[in-house]
Amino acid sequence: MGDTTGAEQDADNVIRILVATDNHLGYGEKDAVRGEDSFTAFEEILELAVSEDVDMILLGGDLFHDAVPSQNSLHKCMELLRRYTFGDRPVSLEILSDQVQSFHNAVNQSVNYEDPNLNIGIPVFSIHGNHDDPSGFGRLSSLDLLSTAGLVNYFGRWTDLSQVEISPILIRKGESQMALYGLSHIHDGRLARLVKDFKVNFNCPDKARDDGKEGEQEEEWFHLLVVHQNRADRGPKNYLPEDSLPSFLHLVIWGHEHDCRIEPEVNAKKGFYVSQPGSSVPTSLSEGEAKKKHVGLLEIYKTKFKLKELPLQTVRPFVFDSIVLPDRAEELGLNEGDASTKVFRFAKERVEAMIAQAEAQLTGHPRQPTLPLIRLRLLYTDESCMFNTIRFSQMFGTRVANVQDVVLFSKLIKRTKVE
Amino acid sequence: MGDTTGAEQDADNVIRILVATDNHLGYGEKDAVRGEDSFTAFEEILELAVSEDVDMILLGGDLFHDAVPSQNSLHKCMELLRRYTFGDRPVSLEILSDQVQSFHNAVNQSVNYEDPNLNIGIPVFSIHGNHDDPSGFGRLSSLDLLSTAGLVNYFGRWTDLSQVEISPILIRKGESQMALYGLSHIHDGRLARLVKDFKVNFNCPDKARDDGKEGEQEEEWFHLLVVHQNRADRGPKNYLPEDSLPSFLHLVIWGHEHDCRIEPEVNAKKGFYVSQPGSSVPTSLSEGEAKKKHVGLLEIYKTKFKLKELPLQTVRPFVFDSIVLPDRAEELGLNEGDASTKVFRFAKERVEAMIAQAEAQLTGHPRQPTLPLIRLRLLYTDESCMFNTIRFSQMFGTRVANVQDVVLFSKLIKRTKVE
Ligand SMILES: [Mn+2]
Ligand SMILES: [Mn+2]
Ligand SMILES: [Mn+2]
Ligand SMILES: [Mn+2]
Repeated sequence: MGDTTGAEQDADNVIRILVATDNHLGYGEKDAVRGEDSFTAFEEILELAVSEDVDMILLGGDLFHDAVPSQNSLHKCMELLRRYTFGDRPVSLEILSDQVQSFHNAVNQSVNYEDPNLNIGIPVFSIHGNHDDPSGFGRLSSLDLLSTAGLVNYFGRWTDLSQVEISPILIRKGESQMALYGLSHIHDGRLARLVKDFKVNFNCPDKARDDGKEGEQEEEWFHLLVVHQNRADRGPKNYLPEDSLPSFLHLVIWGHEHDCRIEPEVNAKKGFYVSQPGSSVPTSLSEGEAKKKHVGLLEIYKTKFKLKELPLQTVRPFVFDSIVLPDRAEELGLNEGDASTKVFRFAKERVEAMIAQAEAQLTGHPRQPTLPLIRLRLLYTDESCMFNTIRFSQMFGTRVANVQDVVLFSKLIKRTKVE
Repeated sequence: MGDTTGAEQDADNVIRILVATDNHLGYGEKDAVRGEDSFTAFEEILELAVSEDVDMILLGGDLFHDAVPSQNSLHKCMELLRRYTFGDRPVSLEILSDQVQSFHNAVNQSVNYEDPNLNIGIPVFSIHGNHDDPSGFGRLSSLDLLSTAGLVNYFGRWTDLSQVEISPILIRKGESQMALYGLSHIHDGRLARLVKDFKVNFNCPDKARDDGKEGEQEEEWFHLLVVHQNRADRGPKNYLPEDSLPSFLHLVIWGHEHDCRIEPEVNAKKGFYVSQPGSSVPTSLSEGEAKKKHVGLLEIYKTKFKLKELPLQTVRPFVFDSIVLPDRAEELGLNEGDASTKVFRFAKERVEAMIAQAEAQLTGHPRQPTLPLIRLRLLYTDESCMFNTIRFSQMFGTRVANVQDVVLFSKLIKRTKVE
């Protein structure tokens, strides 16, 4: 990562970026309890961008949960973006690359803050994910709508699926220069084929670096890539192997994976770092989604960076637990008598404990919803230990946010299924 | 109407408004031939607003054809509004009334051109029609989206259906003052009841006028109402009778009715004028929709107005004709031999003539689509004169825009059905 502290690293030379991804606006919007959660977290992210006085916001895709967001979702999103990202704050990022190329779908084919009719304080840059990819009549992404409304700078959209050319947006602030590469979501299998056939090209402004030679001092770039693909190995051709990315990169912001692994991890083979911010709202009650949610404050000085983890304060408490019932057979006496009732009692106690545990996640933020998400996964081999999970869940009717599905029975199989 | 010519009526004192309605953006958008028609006409209207250098655009509802417009429609509409209504042109309309009240749904609860973060050249004001009324989850109108994007000033939305209070937006330009009343669409039957029960109230800034007394000279207002209801008598409680509107009004812009009757007609009983601009794209192949389409340039000086009719140049040619077959029985010899074949031949000649006639509607505008809409309605009593209309239409496959339905057989009934 390198050290970004030093005399010359004043505000004029450090590019400061609020990094977030997978906001899934509109997720469960009709749910009376959880309907606002996605918007609440997104608003907090925008507030953080304002309070941290960042130069820009970088989103990693899946801004919306639905390819065609409801009017409610679009409306709320546009309202939030107008409230927090418009204003008099001067934007000190200079775009050095060809804007017509980078923003060819935009109304003025330029970055929004250079539109003389819009007063943008914090520009938002976003690629699309698999949830907001272009679809339907006109092949538009919901990000096209936000772009046309002047609210978002939508980039990284490939136009030719037989050959992906990634030309970075070149951005300068004082002494720092960033090459921002975006690769909007592509079906993993297709991308795997393109990678294999060497048909994914990065139009690097400083190719020399990739050959191991150092570029001129004034040609130093910080190479930042944002992608939205499977990162975890979900079978061959079903993920984007980190190792297939070029070594000249300094940092990859990885969207799509919802568990927060925001702390940059070095790829030993290629030398770049990967940060996976994770979603800002859980869209499944899985173990990964129960991890504490963060966004990142990325500071770039020349070719060095620092990523400060900012814990989100408005995310609904969520406690996940998983029990392998066969491991507890003796302890619970499942082999004699009424196994179902025994597991029921055990689960009830466990859920009580989880609800208590959820309180530790209360942040005191006035907008944090307090009713927790609770998910107890019971891995079983013998069906005799099962009970009616809906009736079970209803015992906690007023004390959990997910009344329908507090307990999930899951058949224990050898290869643990990735949730 | 009064005369608005005179020495003192310089540009600084005359309010100039481009008036249009029922643009039905997205109508038939997936039709390979006609898909762009609604957008083409709307773009021409915006161009007229720019070339006529108006102070504002006033829309009478049904801006979109669908309550939830497709992403394609929203996108195109936003793009056009940004291209034509944003800019450095100074807006010289001063809002005198409480903006929080008039624009309570807007992001800043103000008219868009007073938002310091938007540079609006020509503000658009719109009520909603029955096609873009609030619907679905969140009860949002598509106009709410445009309002939130800063593109439209959505007004005239009632909030209480048991009591409609219409408070005007009070607008001043130099010596002229306009009270702009908006009544967004309400189900006709419900509105009829409200009117009957005296539950529709106009909060007139100069009530004295309604009592027959003249207000102070400095309190003179031009009272302009825009509505979106049935105007034609479609049965009791199924339209808004003009006579139920207050006599202090000077002019009513009537939306919803698609035939162009833009030339102001005086209501003899109440003394106000009514102008019905009509739709800018035909959404049915009816006689009314075949009338030449116009928008209006409304000029207001104190309590006088002038409305200049601006014919639209980009509307697709459309020729409608209606034949009462029984009236032609003798001429065509329908009572002897093969009536079907005789009517077929007659219709074919007629359609040929109509296609020729359509050429007179070509304006030479480079964006006008030239392939005409042709509709021949054959009113019959005896089914023996009918033929396969789809096969018939296909003869004109490359020469008409509506290949599927050039001829429509319609059973002759005593009371002529209103299309
Ligand atoms: Mn996602
Ligand atoms: Mn995704
Ligand atoms: Mn209409
Ligand atoms: Mn209508």
